Amino acid sequence: MKVTSEDMRELGEFGLIDRIAAKIVPGRGVALGIGDDAAAVEQANGVLTLSTSDMLVEGVHFDLSLCDPGTLGRKSLAVNLSDIAATCASPAGMVISITLLGEQVPEKIVRRNGACTHDLIFVTGTIGDSALGLQLLRQGHTLGPAVARHLDPSPRVREGQALAVAGLATSMIDVSDGLLGDLQHLLDNSSVGALVYLDKIPVSHQYRQYFRQECGEFYSVALTGGEDYELLFTAPPCQRHDIISLFAKLGTPLAEIGEVTSERRVCVISPEGTVLPVEKKGYDHFL
Amino acid sequence: MKVTSEDMRELGEFGLIDRIAAKIVPGRGVALGIGDDAAAVEQANGVLTLSTSDMLVEGVHFDLSLCDPGTLGRKSLAVNLSDIAATCASPAGMVISITLLGEQVPEKIVRRNGACTHDLIFVTGTIGDSALGLQLLRQGHTLGPAVARHLDPSPRVREGQALAVAGLATSMIDVSDGLLGDLQHLLDNSSVGALVYLDKIPVSHQYRQYFRQECGEFYSVALTGGEDYELLFTAPPCQRHDIISLFAKLGTPLAEIGEVTSERRVCVISPEGTVLPVEKKGYDHFL
Repeated sequence: MKVTSEDMRELGEFGLIDRIAAKIVPGRGVALGIGDDAAAVEQANGVLTLSTSDMLVEGVHFDLSLCDPGTLGRKSLAVNLSDIAATCASPAGMVISITLLGEQVPEKIVRRNGACTHDLIFVTGTIGDSALGLQLLRQGHTLGPAVARHLDPSPRVREGQALAVAGLATSMIDVSDGLLGDLQHLLDNSSVGALVYLDKIPVSHQYRQYFRQECGEFYSVALTGGEDYELLFTAPPCQRHDIISLFAKLGTPLAEIGEVTSERRVCVISPEGTVLPVEKKGYDHFL
Repeated sequence: MKVTSEDMRELGEFGLIDRIAAKIVPGRGVALGIGDDAAAVEQANGVLTLSTSDMLVEGVHFDLSLCDPGTLGRKSLAVNLSDIAATCASPAGMVISITLLGEQVPEKIVRRNGACTHDLIFVTGTIGDSALGLQLLRQGHTLGPAVARHLDPSPRVREGQALAVAGLATSMIDVSDGLLGDLQHLLDNSSVGALVYLDKIPVSHQYRQYFRQECGEFYSVALTGGEDYELLFTAPPCQRHDIISLFAKLGTPLAEIGEVTSERRVCVISPEGTVLPVEKKGYDHFL
């Protein structure tokens, strides 16, 4: 079946769906298929699992000038709940997939593979607050800055663009899987290693209050807790001054936490100057 | 490459990504591929379009007992913005896809294909408010009940489940594409037609204030404006009393707007009793 865009307009969305439906033979166990609000597949115990999927495209289904992202997220879920409501089922699980497009000229792109031996390693803001926020949420706390960091992170879009325009960073990644894990991605892509100084890792006041410095968790949560969405980047030592000036101008805290080495491994240095063993580096979906 | 779940645990997420990346030959024009925060494809004018996609799975990445849907939506966008930030690009467009799973026993599922001749047609709540809300938003109004209906709809999950448990409806759909369009889906699936009485279509006080009844838009917006997320269902006349009692108990407004006919077309009846021509029925992505 070859369908041109002219045919599509003539058929319309629902005509096309009908045409596809006519060619589909429902599989064994498929109780509801194309044409209903949800698809239903029979489980071994006789209960039906219903599945409904909706795609919302910017400029077609929503306009971010009329609707903030929080409202959009809530509405996206309501649209799907409504399809399940029309099939009378109880909601049982959800998968959200978001694709974001961006634009940049090639020479301003900062990749993961540009880190060089002797480069300095910087990280924005504070690390570990999101992991602390998740611990607090699980204990029933719903307020406070760490919980807000976990539930409502602020991506460093402005800082990433400013670094790109100034041409200061040799490699960059966002800290989503955990500081050590994401650093490892940068280093692996750049075929280098690093020294990281534990006492230079920036943690918040609330973080210091919660984790006693003498307990093992103090550093392990900051090193491996994910979802901080801070920027981790490398830059040559000669750019240190310009980088510090840039972040002072942006009003964004910045910490220099280590340096890139030619030896392809990460050494974490304790406040006493000893090299610490590194075990779990960050979040891995399969572990 | 055959990979068992045991291999997966041993490889880990990033090991698997590396293994896949080693087998992929980047296409012409692909400036950033697997291993960076975003993929980048070169446009004809030399600018790169960057694309990043994240999937959030309930129970793995989020827990709705710790996080309301609005916060989850906002966070989902922040996670993707952070990936674009680490590649230094300006956000340019977004696609959101949500899949929701539900559960129900087979005998309680209400399909689209059960409407029978002489069945009554009911709709919950009021119709047209979401379309009115969108008009108001575009005029710069950000408050009021119609705007709230458009931005923050409440799916009728409780009502759908109550109808299913009571076994009262013969067919059901949610009003997402527009009243006439969604009614047409029900009727097509059930191989029947309908009479719809224009003056029985439930509209809100605000809707009546905005659209003057004597102007053509008064009914056309209610008939074809989408995104109301009310339930539209059919039931035999002998169930009328039980249905009215059920909705009185639920505290949800319900209107009887017409009846199912054996002749396979929709006739819209004006308040004066004449049959009105039906043109555009609802939202179609290709028109």
